[in-house]
Amino acid sequence: MRTRETLIRSAAEVFGREGFTRASLTAISSSAGVSSGALHFHFESKAALADAVEAEALARLLALTRTELPAGTSHVQLLVDVTHRLAHELRGDVVLRTGFALGGELSRPARTGPREHWWRWVGEELERAEARGELRAEVTAQDVLTVVVAAMAGLEVLGVRDAMWLSAATVSRIWRLLLPAVAPTALLADLEIDGTRFR
Amino acid sequence: MRTRETLIRSAAEVFGREGFTRASLTAISSSAGVSSGALHFHFESKAALADAVEAEALARLLALTRTELPAGTSHVQLLVDVTHRLAHELRGDVVLRTGFALGGELSRPARTGPREHWWRWVGEELERAEARGELRAEVTAQDVLTVVVAAMAGLEVLGVRDAMWLSAATVSRIWRLLLPAVAPTALLADLEIDGTRFR
Repeated sequence: MRTRETLIRSAAEVFGREGFTRASLTAISSSAGVSSGALHFHFESKAALADAVEAEALARLLALTRTELPAGTSHVQLLVDVTHRLAHELRGDVVLRTGFALGGELSRPARTGPREHWWRWVGEELERAEARGELRAEVTAQDVLTVVVAAMAGLEVLGVRDAMWLSAATVSRIWRLLLPAVAPTALLADLEIDGTRFR
Repeated sequence: MRTRETLIRSAAEVFGREGFTRASLTAISSSAGVSSGALHFHFESKAALADAVEAEALARLLALTRTELPAGTSHVQLLVDVTHRLAHELRGDVVLRTGFALGGELSRPARTGPREHWWRWVGEELERAEARGELRAEVTAQDVLTVVVAAMAGLEVLGVRDAMWLSAATVSRIWRLLLPAVAPTALLADLEIDGTRFR
């Protein structure tokens, strides 16, 4: 079990650095400090390793989004908090970061990976927010969903070259601009653009 | 000259489909309908071809952003128009699309490519908008820059799998949400979220 986890982490590092197609199984097993026989015992192919990285990233993202809404908190605040948490984790967690990026690799089959789960979760939270009157009347949940999903995908890819894009300051900038357009004036005073419980 | 252009286009198609590291020079020359000798006459390596794709994408982006501000138009409207045009071109122009994507390839050296030019151009337009009083007093050009650059990078990468992300409807959704947060009320009535001259 320990070996399997080490291999997934090494695979994420090597895929992240060299890309899926160029990454070699030898580089992955040697960076994990295991024999190539041990690698093949756990994973039958490079594609199986990439699937495992993506599945582990999805599991970690599910843990992030499976947060209970704290009493007295709005769905909009939960969304702000979880985007901060996601940017923070994408910055520090190579498995999560590579799992997201693998979803954009055209050389791999399309599947329900972290990006699709993220899109669905943000959409569900925004629908709940809308039903509770937490969105401005002139705004649609669909418009907010488009901006939030596009901006977070942008931070994810721009952050590969420059981690500033995944900093708390960047996420706060985005919400400082968006929240007055998204939330009714009555709710605005209660919202923390820097996030609350996840920092 | 014609052969060189054909090779750049074929290279963009093959890099876009297979990724830079997996793409083979044989696939590129045969898709261009030229001999491998002709390819090597124009380009000494795969990296030189990728550089040429990126340079051509940058030239096309420069043409998009070198637009004169039409009389009576705000810098904010120009920004809306150019984002529409960029999304439209990213959708249809494989050289532009691949040139942007190559900037995120970790296996290639960082350089001043289309993404960097885009970031700089949006920043300059927003500074001009701010100087002319076209941004709301409570908003900073830096916050708007962060959201616009992140969102467009998101459309670029999400659009690889699903062209809906690069549709005019998606770009309009983004501006429908952002403009009331960005532009003063007096300017809002004059702004066209669907763009004006570039559609």
